[in-house]
Amino acid sequence: MDRIAILMPGDMGHAVGRALRQHGHAVTTCLAGRSARSRGLAERAGMRDAATLEALVAGADLILSILPPAAAAAQAGAVAAAMAASGARPVYADCNAVSPMTARKIGAVIAAAGAPFIDCGIIGAAPGKGNPPRFHVSGPDTAAMERLDGKGIAVIPMGPEIGRASALKMVYAGLTKGAMTLHTAMLLAAWQLGIYDEALAEYADSQPGALKAMRGRVPGLPADAGRWIGEMEEIAATLAGVGVTPAFHDGAAEICRVLERTPFAAETRETLDRSRTLDQAIPVYAKYLKGDGD
Amino acid sequence: MDRIAILMPGDMGHAVGRALRQHGHAVTTCLAGRSARSRGLAERAGMRDAATLEALVAGADLILSILPPAAAAAQAGAVAAAMAASGARPVYADCNAVSPMTARKIGAVIAAAGAPFIDCGIIGAAPGKGNPPRFHVSGPDTAAMERLDGKGIAVIPMGPEIGRASALKMVYAGLTKGAMTLHTAMLLAAWQLGIYDEALAEYADSQPGALKAMRGRVPGLPADAGRWIGEMEEIAATLAGVGVTPAFHDGAAEICRVLERTPFAAETRETLDRSRTLDQAIPVYAKYLKGDGD
Repeated sequence: MDRIAILMPGDMGHAVGRALRQHGHAVTTCLAGRSARSRGLAERAGMRDAATLEALVAGADLILSILPPAAAAAQAGAVAAAMAASGARPVYADCNAVSPMTARKIGAVIAAAGAPFIDCGIIGAAPGKGNPPRFHVSGPDTAAMERLDGKGIAVIPMGPEIGRASALKMVYAGLTKGAMTLHTAMLLAAWQLGIYDEALAEYADSQPGALKAMRGRVPGLPADAGRWIGEMEEIAATLAGVGVTPAFHDGAAEICRVLERTPFAAETRETLDRSRTLDQAIPVYAKYLKGDGD
Repeated sequence: MDRIAILMPGDMGHAVGRALRQHGHAVTTCLAGRSARSRGLAERAGMRDAATLEALVAGADLILSILPPAAAAAQAGAVAAAMAASGARPVYADCNAVSPMTARKIGAVIAAAGAPFIDCGIIGAAPGKGNPPRFHVSGPDTAAMERLDGKGIAVIPMGPEIGRASALKMVYAGLTKGAMTLHTAMLLAAWQLGIYDEALAEYADSQPGALKAMRGRVPGLPADAGRWIGEMEEIAATLAGVGVTPAFHDGAAEICRVLERTPFAAETRETLDRSRTLDQAIPVYAKYLKGDGD
């Protein structure tokens, strides 16, 4: 049974940690400098706390990096330094929503530290909420991740090339989060143009699927928006890198910046006001269209 | 019974003309300089052909402008000149997919010519294909359009303010065409990244609605793409005008430009190869990602 380290256990990370622990793995994290919320999540998941990153690396066979994409590269650098200090060379799996280019960059940092690297992209909701999330993996040797298949997560190998797993995550999140932010943009425009009720009546009539998606997802987006800004930037870079317009996801990042300025952005998955309706959310979002960040 | 002139009868225009003729209206157009296809469509719809724009204007009580949005303003200018020459002042309804700003600009041209103006936005498929299209109308006096309600089209008044009907069209088309072009962008990215099959497998698994929409609509988009470029630009301008990011529809216009460069763009609604699958279309589209226009 591989000893597993998880960096940094947020919503997805702590749920993965709990699932792997339930399947018999020792799961450790490092909570130094983390928020009270992160500590609480890790505790409830039964994860052990290593005092330092160096101790965490030294005691792990496999490290899963699961964090906001903007922090992925810096985290890999810190782990590489901890590997050098500790002498340990655990397998490092970057599970973040980053472009293939960023994945290759992170892979090079880990390879320079002398440790095996796995590119991983997570699709789906955290373990314990219906279908297990799919961990797509690619790289020269993905066996350490494949051994976790069926342990609350599905692991799907995509061949030896680093970047393929990240590419799939980009193309998937680019669709789902691109659509959610497009929905938000159109509702904001309708509000600003003074035709919100008319637009919703027309959507109800001829685009009921889109309206259902709007009502279900748009009111809770601010809780995700901060993390998604970096993800949308990674998606835009991925598309631009293969000659496809990055503009959709430049727009998606812009909408996330608006949402992150709203008071709702302070909510977490636990404190999210699930009674808030679309009709209540949009006028508040609209107030933050021209914030200081613009 | 108002005598109705339709400018210029393409797919939507000729079907509207046919429906209004079937409801007893005299329907005229002007085919000078139009393509053989437009002549054929107009003939089959039973529309009369006025020799000149001046004659068309002189013989009409109501003019419907139904054409690609990029041509809307120039058309209004030509009609205003024909009004001055003929002395006739029929009601002019601009039914095109233009921004509220463009609608107000066109309205000012028509008002300067001394004729009544109606802002109109068409949502839905051409008459005769299931639900009748909704003609949303706004302006100081929309009675001339309201009299057409139930005659193969639905007419929905939105109050006295010019721009509201156009705003609704922008917010509606921005959702539907924004989503179709986002779908196209993600499929192109998946193809370019070498993970097309894996992306479609994941969409099939967890985004079946989006995949169904892709398979149904994306292979036929090139036939619409040329007309949509201007429409996406109008939508982008509409959003920017009220402080919402125009980037999604900058991207949508960019995808339309790619599609317009493909050989499929020469197809019309009649010659469209409806047997072409998504898997056949995407590799061809991908070849035109970096055309001369980029």
